[in-house]
Amino acid sequence: MPRTKRLLKLNLISNGLKSTEVDSLSVTLAIGSGGKDTEDFVKRFILPLFKLRSLGGVGLEDMEDGATIPIGDGKHLVISIDSYTVNPPFFPGGNIGKLAASGSLNDVAVMGAEPKALMDAIIVEEGFPLRDLKTILNSMAEVANSMDVALLGGDTKVMPKGSIDKIVIATVGIGIAEEPLLTLDRARPGDKIIVTGPVGDHGATILALQFNLKVETLKSDVRPIWSAVRALRKFGDNLRSAKDPTRGGLAMALNEIAERSGNSIVVYEDAIPMKNEVRTYAEMLGVEPLALASEGQAIFVVDPSIEEEALEALRKEGYEEARTIGEVKGGKSGYVVLKTRVGGLRILEKPIGELVPRIC
Amino acid sequence: MPRTKRLLKLNLISNGLKSTEVDSLSVTLAIGSGGKDTEDFVKRFILPLFKLRSLGGVGLEDMEDGATIPIGDGKHLVISIDSYTVNPPFFPGGNIGKLAASGSLNDVAVMGAEPKALMDAIIVEEGFPLRDLKTILNSMAEVANSMDVALLGGDTKVMPKGSIDKIVIATVGIGIAEEPLLTLDRARPGDKIIVTGPVGDHGATILALQFNLKVETLKSDVRPIWSAVRALRKFGDNLRSAKDPTRGGLAMALNEIAERSGNSIVVYEDAIPMKNEVRTYAEMLGVEPLALASEGQAIFVVDPSIEEEALEALRKEGYEEARTIGEVKGGKSGYVVLKTRVGGLRILEKPIGELVPRIC
Repeated sequence: MPRTKRLLKLNLISNGLKSTEVDSLSVTLAIGSGGKDTEDFVKRFILPLFKLRSLGGVGLEDMEDGATIPIGDGKHLVISIDSYTVNPPFFPGGNIGKLAASGSLNDVAVMGAEPKALMDAIIVEEGFPLRDLKTILNSMAEVANSMDVALLGGDTKVMPKGSIDKIVIATVGIGIAEEPLLTLDRARPGDKIIVTGPVGDHGATILALQFNLKVETLKSDVRPIWSAVRALRKFGDNLRSAKDPTRGGLAMALNEIAERSGNSIVVYEDAIPMKNEVRTYAEMLGVEPLALASEGQAIFVVDPSIEEEALEALRKEGYEEARTIGEVKGGKSGYVVLKTRVGGLRILEKPIGELVPRIC
Repeated sequence: MPRTKRLLKLNLISNGLKSTEVDSLSVTLAIGSGGKDTEDFVKRFILPLFKLRSLGGVGLEDMEDGATIPIGDGKHLVISIDSYTVNPPFFPGGNIGKLAASGSLNDVAVMGAEPKALMDAIIVEEGFPLRDLKTILNSMAEVANSMDVALLGGDTKVMPKGSIDKIVIATVGIGIAEEPLLTLDRARPGDKIIVTGPVGDHGATILALQFNLKVETLKSDVRPIWSAVRALRKFGDNLRSAKDPTRGGLAMALNEIAERSGNSIVVYEDAIPMKNEVRTYAEMLGVEPLALASEGQAIFVVDPSIEEEALEALRKEGYEEARTIGEVKGGKSGYVVLKTRVGGLRILEKPIGELVPRIC
């Protein structure tokens, strides 16, 4: 199906089509993009069905990376689920196992929680090489072991040859957070936005592989980012929010911060760290580089009073390219403005549609 | 691949093949069967990789249906993950949504926990009818709403047409349990084994559909079984263990109880409730009827002093066909003996291999 048709269909859904018309539609790749269409799908088709959507902590409609269950003394158990369908399952910089373990633990970490446990559901195609499965499991274990994270349990299903493309892994990350939780609604006008390092490496790598382009120096940045969150926890309330710019990239993450906090955001293009190769691939393929996924970087919103200390703390922790890329402004809620290199202004929108699926 | 060859391969793995030889093998359907092969796979390829395997409660190596996190005052948060790949996704008695929600909440319930929350990761094929996805989501919501269970969050991924057969759902069930947890190691010689109703309905239904047989009165029994557990919680320590006989059926469940508790078990064939249609389909297809999955029944191990009261409590709760099917014996650990209708004895083994995948 040509991309425009897919997008058209989605937009119809977002724009309040009647249910009889909805019934003639089919699921599009965009629904799984992690961008605006995913959000619309969840808000329209999932949220209204469920009577209860939280246990008194962060829940479904907060649209955060993890949910929380208050367990007393200002502590929360933080839980996150994600499925990983990345194609190919092995790529420069990692594999689906490293991605699945890091990804769900990162979702917990950006809520402010120390990752404690992991659970997994592996769905693998009959005939998948056992050696490759061992490598994938080993990568998951390496991530967990490096962080003293326990594997509490899991599930393994095998689907007959041809009924699933190689392997899909769903992982649950579990952590413990002390308040304040680093939710996106906490950003205030004047706050600074910091990123831990160059963005888009993972997305560019997988895109290039899917388009059969040569991936030379490019590799996925996939890794756990808890050490970055931990380094900033000491700033207490002055560390406002954290987010990992995965599906939908920096563009989606910044829009979410702007929307949930009811502020606008200004970011400076020339301040955003991005490798030249990433920019080149994005240009070559005609995609917005700021919508490319990172799987090993975090965005922080911090009080301006701790900006320099926070950058220093991150650099000490090994995030040497950590940088301030913009700030939170009052004004119109939900807008992200990019000050371009040549001095122009453009609205950085939530990514719409889906050019390439199975990025993560 | 013929079934015998698959089995042979698996047995080689179980029997301690050298790693160079393992590397030339590939993943078999049996690894995902939920029977002996799954257990062997987990014990050999997953367990040894992870340094930490619990958070002080029930963890990975306990091989229970859920893991637990102690939260003080003798309470545990119970968490379970499972993926559902059932083919076809719609079947008499339910659909993959009802199955995924009930299944993970049942896994939590049989640990003794009141189900409180659900999380989901949906992986759907591009082009899947939106109307069907809505029906599936609606069934999940019906289960959750009927039990005052909250949907805390989730994830939606879409895979391109042809890369996944329709839809797979991973769900996480979350509940709160007060001690004693109903773990399988608590069964003691003399305890009675009760089942809430006829077994094998789900497995027989899906089998028949996959073999293109006519499914007339047969339908899946998929439903939440928390009400059965709740009805017996008042018996405190006299309610020893609970288990839902899903993949691997009663045969697997009883073997697990025998093995983990270090006892043997005797069950009486003529006491095991099973619909005639289920028996007929199993005979027709040459499968062990006691290895067929139920998705809406529970097995309880109870002190003999409460046997009658427990049966009464279950019947009052609507489990009218609840029955005692056998008892726990001392003697050789890990054996399940079936007293057949004609008075013979046979060992009821853990199911090996996998005749038909994607039962749940």
